[in-house]
Amino acid sequence: MSFDSIENDFADNLPDDVSGRPVSEVLVEMAEILRQAQSVLIATHVGPDGDAIGSSVGLALGLKSLGKEARVFSGSSVDGRFEGLIAAGSVETVDEEGASCLTGQFDVCVLLDTSEPARAGVLEGVIFAPGQKRICIDHHLLSGEYSFDSHLAVASSPATACLVLWLLDELEVTVEDNIARALWLALATDTGWFRFSNAGRLAFQCAERLLEGGLDPEELYGFIYGSRSGQKTRLWGRVLLEHQLALDGRLVWSVISRETLAEAGAVREDLDGAIDLLKGVKGAHTAALLSQLDDGSFKVSLRSVESIDVERVARELGGGGHAKAAGYSATGTAQEILDTLKDVLNKELDT
Amino acid sequence: MSFDSIENDFADNLPDDVSGRPVSEVLVEMAEILRQAQSVLIATHVGPDGDAIGSSVGLALGLKSLGKEARVFSGSSVDGRFEGLIAAGSVETVDEEGASCLTGQFDVCVLLDTSEPARAGVLEGVIFAPGQKRICIDHHLLSGEYSFDSHLAVASSPATACLVLWLLDELEVTVEDNIARALWLALATDTGWFRFSNAGRLAFQCAERLLEGGLDPEELYGFIYGSRSGQKTRLWGRVLLEHQLALDGRLVWSVISRETLAEAGAVREDLDGAIDLLKGVKGAHTAALLSQLDDGSFKVSLRSVESIDVERVARELGGGGHAKAAGYSATGTAQEILDTLKDVLNKELDT
Repeated sequence: MSFDSIENDFADNLPDDVSGRPVSEVLVEMAEILRQAQSVLIATHVGPDGDAIGSSVGLALGLKSLGKEARVFSGSSVDGRFEGLIAAGSVETVDEEGASCLTGQFDVCVLLDTSEPARAGVLEGVIFAPGQKRICIDHHLLSGEYSFDSHLAVASSPATACLVLWLLDELEVTVEDNIARALWLALATDTGWFRFSNAGRLAFQCAERLLEGGLDPEELYGFIYGSRSGQKTRLWGRVLLEHQLALDGRLVWSVISRETLAEAGAVREDLDGAIDLLKGVKGAHTAALLSQLDDGSFKVSLRSVESIDVERVARELGGGGHAKAAGYSATGTAQEILDTLKDVLNKELDT
Repeated sequence: MSFDSIENDFADNLPDDVSGRPVSEVLVEMAEILRQAQSVLIATHVGPDGDAIGSSVGLALGLKSLGKEARVFSGSSVDGRFEGLIAAGSVETVDEEGASCLTGQFDVCVLLDTSEPARAGVLEGVIFAPGQKRICIDHHLLSGEYSFDSHLAVASSPATACLVLWLLDELEVTVEDNIARALWLALATDTGWFRFSNAGRLAFQCAERLLEGGLDPEELYGFIYGSRSGQKTRLWGRVLLEHQLALDGRLVWSVISRETLAEAGAVREDLDGAIDLLKGVKGAHTAALLSQLDDGSFKVSLRSVESIDVERVARELGGGGHAKAAGYSATGTAQEILDTLKDVLNKELDT
């Protein structure tokens, strides 16, 4: 059985599925459902990140190599940074009407990188149509009841891509260069290029497997992170140059107003990634980036450097996210917003 | 034999030693010399980088765990960024006089991360004293004749740390947390945190081995890269904000004058790492960072993004380095220096 070779080659100690079932058992069940399918629809969550897109495309390519029809659909467009790692047309964008035409057209629907029906966006109705066979692969913690014919959820997996790789192994798919590139995109972005706390042994084992075919990591890095426009680069410069400290240096923050954005010739999306540079300021426990929206209000992004749970901070201020990365919206002057944030953060720092 | 377990566990296909001897054979020979030694001096090259320091400290800790006296000496002080990963006092700094007292005091001297006697600085005389037993572990390409009792040089190894890890395996040393941290420092800095072209399968395999004991990569990242002072952060901001393009966008450059440095309250060393951010500008084949010295002249740092060999460019302008990273010194105005650089680079881009 191919699972033996997975255990030996790649994941000596597979973590548990959150359901408590052994991962090996779920993989066998899931592979059997896919083997019997001829046409497979693959979908992921709205606002798909690198793991969502990379895992979806990697799985589709693997299934295609087995002679199946496999198509990836998304209700949102795909981040341009991913273009160097997945072929054009790998993901088909659909609106609500387009999605509804897909209902009942596929033997199996696969939901990746989320287990929440609502997060499937316009594709929710297709995947959860009565009688539709559906499976789910995810690495987020679950809360709730789910109705999948097979459901693999491993919270300790660094990315959904690792679970897809195990499934492809179970399906005895050869991981060709194009599959490896897609899964690399997923793994590399979800671990912040092997920097975040989820970049443990499993992430490095998975990366090493993907490099077997001879990928060039430096080239891949360039595709994902190395292609910043001049405007974006200038905007990041402003974020760094004008950063300020508060709470005895435990908070580092920066504000980008509409005027600054216009001066740099940049758009708000160009701020993506800048907060990770702010995080690097010595002594900071939390980084905050305030960016002004067109209506004058602010989006506040938070990152935790030390053990601060920024999700709790953001929740108190009407937002949400994860313990390490969260955010919320606020109105008022930057100084007012900052004062409120400092109050909440101060309580969190004291606990 | 322990080498079998290395082959199975870690490096299925060990690359060759540049001498043409199998690496396994050299490791056996080297381990035997160290087993017979009671006191070992470890030294590396002048201006020691993360690989030099991390490999040296990792080897010393491994030898100590076998009950040997093992001390690391350096003629230069150790970069403060490394302090979170190696214990205080791990490296003893010596001047010429201090070094001369060490001659003949050790059973074996180990030179790490360079094979060139002159690069050992004040410790050259100790290591190369007549009758002194000496060994060398290095991952740079060699040219010349060398006189070591055992000499392991593997150019395809991502860092000297990987070779030290193989040697520790051969010596049946348990890789405890403190050894893993030191070798992680070495591997992570020499591969630019798994971004550079040497971050291939061997680097990821080595990293995965070092994580076995439960290191926290995010914490380690913070120690090495996540502790930028406010001044340094502002300086990086200037580098990004004021970047310019030339040669149809194929050259991205930035200048930091003495005045800018003073304004940011920064020192020239604070520029370390900034050029890697410049490299990320879309379309750039080469990044150049001009920083003004106290006497008004400039240091020019070059990085290759694409296939440009910047060592050839730097050499034509009186400097040197590697194909991917090189530099030189120049006098004149920033604009004059840039014009000369553009001329040389233009020829290189056309070839």
